[in-house]
Amino acid sequence: MRDEGGIREMRIHPMWKQYPYLEKDLEQVVKLIESSIRIKDQKITKTIQDLIHSGGKLLRPAYSLLCSEIGPEKNKERAIAIAAAVECLHMATLVHDDVIDDSDTRHGKPTVHTQNGNRFAIYTGDYLFSLTFSLLARYASSMKNLEFNSRGIEKILIGELEQLNSRYKEPTSVKEYLSRISGKTAQLFSISCYLGAIESYAPKSVAMHAWNMGRYIGMSFQIIDDILDYQGDFKTVGKPVLSDIRQGIYTLPMIYAMRMNPKPFKQILKKKEDLTDEDVLELAELVHKYKGVENAKGLAKKYTDKAIKELNQLPEGEYKQTLLELTEMLLTRKL
Amino acid sequence: MRDEGGIREMRIHPMWKQYPYLEKDLEQVVKLIESSIRIKDQKITKTIQDLIHSGGKLLRPAYSLLCSEIGPEKNKERAIAIAAAVECLHMATLVHDDVIDDSDTRHGKPTVHTQNGNRFAIYTGDYLFSLTFSLLARYASSMKNLEFNSRGIEKILIGELEQLNSRYKEPTSVKEYLSRISGKTAQLFSISCYLGAIESYAPKSVAMHAWNMGRYIGMSFQIIDDILDYQGDFKTVGKPVLSDIRQGIYTLPMIYAMRMNPKPFKQILKKKEDLTDEDVLELAELVHKYKGVENAKGLAKKYTDKAIKELNQLPEGEYKQTLLELTEMLLTRKL
Repeated sequence: MRDEGGIREMRIHPMWKQYPYLEKDLEQVVKLIESSIRIKDQKITKTIQDLIHSGGKLLRPAYSLLCSEIGPEKNKERAIAIAAAVECLHMATLVHDDVIDDSDTRHGKPTVHTQNGNRFAIYTGDYLFSLTFSLLARYASSMKNLEFNSRGIEKILIGELEQLNSRYKEPTSVKEYLSRISGKTAQLFSISCYLGAIESYAPKSVAMHAWNMGRYIGMSFQIIDDILDYQGDFKTVGKPVLSDIRQGIYTLPMIYAMRMNPKPFKQILKKKEDLTDEDVLELAELVHKYKGVENAKGLAKKYTDKAIKELNQLPEGEYKQTLLELTEMLLTRKL
Repeated sequence: MRDEGGIREMRIHPMWKQYPYLEKDLEQVVKLIESSIRIKDQKITKTIQDLIHSGGKLLRPAYSLLCSEIGPEKNKERAIAIAAAVECLHMATLVHDDVIDDSDTRHGKPTVHTQNGNRFAIYTGDYLFSLTFSLLARYASSMKNLEFNSRGIEKILIGELEQLNSRYKEPTSVKEYLSRISGKTAQLFSISCYLGAIESYAPKSVAMHAWNMGRYIGMSFQIIDDILDYQGDFKTVGKPVLSDIRQGIYTLPMIYAMRMNPKPFKQILKKKEDLTDEDVLELAELVHKYKGVENAKGLAKKYTDKAIKELNQLPEGEYKQTLLELTEMLLTRKL
């Protein structure tokens, strides 16, 4: 959004208006990322800046900032830098997720724009990765923490690779699904919360509650995201529905539904990447029919409860109320 | 190469046979990378292991290991870990360089293999990036060094982005070309040499000679690589000739030749990505005619001399002779 003078006014998502203190800090996070970009080329700089301003909710840095209130050390500069690192990491994975596969570009002659598209996205993501590590190396309090984080980041990528490798494979078990989303989504929420806590010198045992809380929030968040893919509400999800099935990613609702009656699913799924639009719709109907969505909602609720249980273990403080409200808002997806 | 029992016997490039001590250390580097891969999925693990064993020359870790002889600290475990980090970083950039652009896959229906191709390559590269930082965080001696390295890695990616952005643009100046390869190739050689030196506790001033040496080696190495693209010797280069022109990357030989007579080049280059095979061949002939290759060789020689001058500034030791031989071999590309 630009004001009448053409100057970019709103930097971050309006949802933070209700938490002015957090909003101010998140603005600093965005500013730090912007000022960390040291590329001469204006076009590249603009692409990255557009990405930062594209209206992302800044959830992960918000959790990181809130958790930086847990420990005794009130070093705002470091808390903001750690939150910025977390957001750079998130953006890096987003940019790489958006890279177009060969299969997506069968039609038409490429334009100059799409010609540089993939490689541009890859190097931009890589650059954001390297920014993540620069920020951590510059501001983290110890090598030990840094090593822990690097291992955590490794796990995120292992999660991505495993998800990729399971595409178009019949979904096998709830356990496998949970292990996949645990690496992919939950890990980043865990890191965000843990980093905030440990870098404010919270004792390890307390920081582990932050870690667990982040993990359960991430699990619930991803399950809800996967449920929304079956719910056809374009406004809330912000992406076309049933996109997972189309991409060969079979998530919890389908796994639960198949438990009830595998046969009709197997019949259709064996077509793999040749599913028609009708097949996709039929699969979705089967998922609803065999209570896949309903049961998945149940599990999301369980993880939300677990998250709040961990949250309750954290030391008292004003931040805790915000953390609770944010988590409840997020996990009922009224955002 | 496999021995008769089917067990992989040779792990690294045969060129190292003549330096048994270095060969042993490089084997340890490869082993460390292998053992650092902690992915359950066998297919992914195999892909990464194949990459490690694909016969890369391990030049960067070799430079890093040799430079770890510069300082007083003889910590072999750390030297090997740093060399492994450097190689992971190199592999990450290689894997990402190989990602297929939309433009490369216009023809034919995608197979299951190519369908997962791009994304698989991207996450594998990302994973190798994260391994780089894990290794550095685990073994580097100080946060200060780590921050320096992260900044260095940032610069490599800025170099990649800038090269990408200059595709299909008329080459402007030698200066611009040099700045591009300085970020892209020279930076990684600099980091390899500097890290080896500084992590063996060489004084900063001495480590800077290692840095400069690496930089000049990298500059010369890349110029020679770009010259070889015009020389049509498939065996030495290991890739199809004139591939740079076809990809819209205009390198030093063309820049030098255009200085002599820009007109015939501009005539052809304005077609941008629609160059025919005849156009490409004509451009190559023009480059030779206007002494582009000859003059580029002259500049490569200058950088080689500079590299050896820096090398001579390093403290005496057995490693120095190996460093000299390796550099001379590399920069006359008899490898």
